[in-house]
Amino acid sequence: MAKTKKTPRPKAETPKGFRDYFGSEVESRKAMLDKIAAVYHRYGFDALESSAVETVEALGSFLPDVDRPNAGVFAWQEDAEAEKPGDWLALRYDLTAPLARVFAQHRNDLPTPYRRYAMGPVWRNEKPGPGRFRQFYQCDADTVGTASVAADAEICMMLADALEAVGIERGDYVIRVNNRKVLNGVLEVAGIAEDDERTRGIVLRAIDKLDRLGPDGVRALLGEGRKDESGDFTEGAGLAGNTAATIMRFVEAGFADGNPINILSSLVGDNQTGKEGIAELRGIKELCEDRIVIDPSVVRGLGYYTGPVFEAELTFEITDEKGRPRQFGSVAGGGRYDDLVKRFTGQAVPAVGVSIGVDRLLAALDAKGRLDTAAQGPVVVTVMDRDRMSDYQAMANELRAAGIRAEVYLGNPKNFGNQLKYADKRASPVAIIQGSDEAERGVVQIKDLILGAEIAETASVEEWKEQKQQFEANRDDLVAEVRKLLDK
Amino acid sequence: MAKTKKTPRPKAETPKGFRDYFGSEVESRKAMLDKIAAVYHRYGFDALESSAVETVEALGSFLPDVDRPNAGVFAWQEDAEAEKPGDWLALRYDLTAPLARVFAQHRNDLPTPYRRYAMGPVWRNEKPGPGRFRQFYQCDADTVGTASVAADAEICMMLADALEAVGIERGDYVIRVNNRKVLNGVLEVAGIAEDDERTRGIVLRAIDKLDRLGPDGVRALLGEGRKDESGDFTEGAGLAGNTAATIMRFVEAGFADGNPINILSSLVGDNQTGKEGIAELRGIKELCEDRIVIDPSVVRGLGYYTGPVFEAELTFEITDEKGRPRQFGSVAGGGRYDDLVKRFTGQAVPAVGVSIGVDRLLAALDAKGRLDTAAQGPVVVTVMDRDRMSDYQAMANELRAAGIRAEVYLGNPKNFGNQLKYADKRASPVAIIQGSDEAERGVVQIKDLILGAEIAETASVEEWKEQKQQFEANRDDLVAEVRKLLDK
Repeated sequence: MAKTKKTPRPKAETPKGFRDYFGSEVESRKAMLDKIAAVYHRYGFDALESSAVETVEALGSFLPDVDRPNAGVFAWQEDAEAEKPGDWLALRYDLTAPLARVFAQHRNDLPTPYRRYAMGPVWRNEKPGPGRFRQFYQCDADTVGTASVAADAEICMMLADALEAVGIERGDYVIRVNNRKVLNGVLEVAGIAEDDERTRGIVLRAIDKLDRLGPDGVRALLGEGRKDESGDFTEGAGLAGNTAATIMRFVEAGFADGNPINILSSLVGDNQTGKEGIAELRGIKELCEDRIVIDPSVVRGLGYYTGPVFEAELTFEITDEKGRPRQFGSVAGGGRYDDLVKRFTGQAVPAVGVSIGVDRLLAALDAKGRLDTAAQGPVVVTVMDRDRMSDYQAMANELRAAGIRAEVYLGNPKNFGNQLKYADKRASPVAIIQGSDEAERGVVQIKDLILGAEIAETASVEEWKEQKQQFEANRDDLVAEVRKLLDK
Repeated sequence: MAKTKKTPRPKAETPKGFRDYFGSEVESRKAMLDKIAAVYHRYGFDALESSAVETVEALGSFLPDVDRPNAGVFAWQEDAEAEKPGDWLALRYDLTAPLARVFAQHRNDLPTPYRRYAMGPVWRNEKPGPGRFRQFYQCDADTVGTASVAADAEICMMLADALEAVGIERGDYVIRVNNRKVLNGVLEVAGIAEDDERTRGIVLRAIDKLDRLGPDGVRALLGEGRKDESGDFTEGAGLAGNTAATIMRFVEAGFADGNPINILSSLVGDNQTGKEGIAELRGIKELCEDRIVIDPSVVRGLGYYTGPVFEAELTFEITDEKGRPRQFGSVAGGGRYDDLVKRFTGQAVPAVGVSIGVDRLLAALDAKGRLDTAAQGPVVVTVMDRDRMSDYQAMANELRAAGIRAEVYLGNPKNFGNQLKYADKRASPVAIIQGSDEAERGVVQIKDLILGAEIAETASVEEWKEQKQQFEANRDDLVAEVRKLLDK
């Protein structure tokens, strides 16, 4: 059976836009998500793990991020069965669309309101870029089936508690809250028609840029438009001066003197939608007190929000890639969306939810030195005599039984330098050495690798033993001596 | 913009063969995997989370389970770029193929040997059936880059420790170990040619059925064949009597008097492959001592195993669907495979690994009453006065601050019966009630819902209050009183 042609070797590569996570990367994310899950659970939220694959029909066509119009899903068609063409299936692109499907499917068995949290990967079929991956984690909590403003307030407070639980201290974050109805009321009062999608779109995007462009930049975009530093021109909404002025008063209400809700209230006047929004803002503020601030510049891109919207911003400074200090910025956001379940059932089901940007929050914890990594490497029991493996494994077992991470070197033991290089690569705190001489005398050599960071790659066993970070201990004291080193 | 045609509503359904996991289902699996991960970590294994999506090229075409020839992957083609057709991508079907790709891709940065564990969903594009899903969890640990028998032994002992860590006591499981080389040696000695795939296949499948068919059934399959209870005939290997007898001595060596390794050794005689296998079995047995048993009937379907194979079997009895007692059976298995990385690099890289059947082990823990569910529902603070939400939220906050899961009822509070039904559905242990009367007197009503399981669905607030499982407590003692009830 001679092969006439060799198949070329496959490339050992992740597909473009995908990556692997190793060791402490996995552990620190897990530790963070565990802490968040504990908070959500304590608030009465139940875990939900929906399937990663949904029918394209159930997912719907609306992607959550209007800033990425090219965003798509990974989809494929099932094999046809009998006469029937196969369904189109796709990987979920977020955790909210599956929640709507789950609630519609199981609504008779689920409690109402249904509080659920979900954590897991989602997939986006879009052009990968630096730091932008096609698979990433989301971490959501939602309450489905109640229009109560207490549900919105609860989500905001729970978000604050979650941030504190992972190590962001009070004062280092702010939960900023706005309400779409207030904005809509102001737009109505300003005379912008409800079906004038173009103008509304420009206005929303302009407000969303307040952080970056400042009030003058936003004002320009409400009017004639704006030329940026590179010379590119962004078309404006072309609003009349007094209309633009009304919207600017709205935008800046959060920074003006006085109670922002009162300012907003005066802006919406008797407008019904606006008044509803004001009442909701008052309700949230009353329940959350000083744990939130009202900030009309919070827009949130997502088209499907219908009432309160909110955002968690980290206010401490970090140094950006160009060495300039800047605020860390947003790590979570959410709001009320009332129409997602209706797609399935025809019945409007009010819902509110929050999504934490897992990678953003991990980066923030990293910047603050709060990453919870159990990153310590194992104690490495080196192998001096190949035929005494069971002795070495007994040492590792004793260490493990005492809760100490430990392993026996399992590569080729011939070159002792390789064993030390290995321990180095594993970030091992301690190496254990026992040759036949030590075995006869009932002792072990214990090498403090944290002290002895500079390991001579070519050191012989004899040279190695002379180094002073190494000491001899009774075999029976192995665990106690290692413990002492680790607790140092 | 009148719509001429309504789009039909999407169906709220998971795709066929997929399912959702709710609340305690998610939590008990997570609790089990966390315990296993802790054991793996203590043994020096590092976490790895590879991407869910791989190129079809990297995954290769060999699926792990030869018993499911129709098993396939979910695959799709990337959009073409310029002149180049898009890559075919697919969801991973196990965690071993991605490990081979990861090790080949990152081998210069990873320590060698590389010990890693991985836990997560895998996907199979196969016909779903009862209890057979197209997305399910795997939980693997592998050591890549060493041929040492100590690595095989370590995996076996770690598997035993993992089973004990999740609650399977010593004596309730057995780790059975065999070696492919011994079997191959016996087949060579018995005169079955190495390239006689058909006969070898029949022999392997026959041995694998020892549990179910007993020695006589296996013997029949080695010879002429066998008619089962339904009358269906399975073709046999057609071996001569003495050849079949040799293989039967091999199969039954684990149950015969005397040391099974010695029996096997006499069977392989001077056969080189067989002798290698015997030496490896001796090595594993010496390192693992009484934590494993040698059992030649362990075959493991997977074609890619090259040396030691092993299986963890639970030996306690459960009652099957027909009410008959039977042993629980296998929950984990693995072995040595030396050729997976070679596909990418051309270099043989020895490796050994184990995979725990996550759903099987969960079912076993369930059967033993060892499932770790934090299944207790939250304390529900009911809402008697709609305008005192902040009071109710303060109660929930105090309970949470004391580590007690608690929530305020957020549905429409008008019908108090609905609040109680909700608490019931949530499996709440305690409900808190405070009307304006209680508020004025600075007290709360505490209702023991565990005691009062039979809640009258139509009970009025007045009737409800009269039930004796309910008592009054000072508002200030809320947390202490609830704690007392929960600790009962």
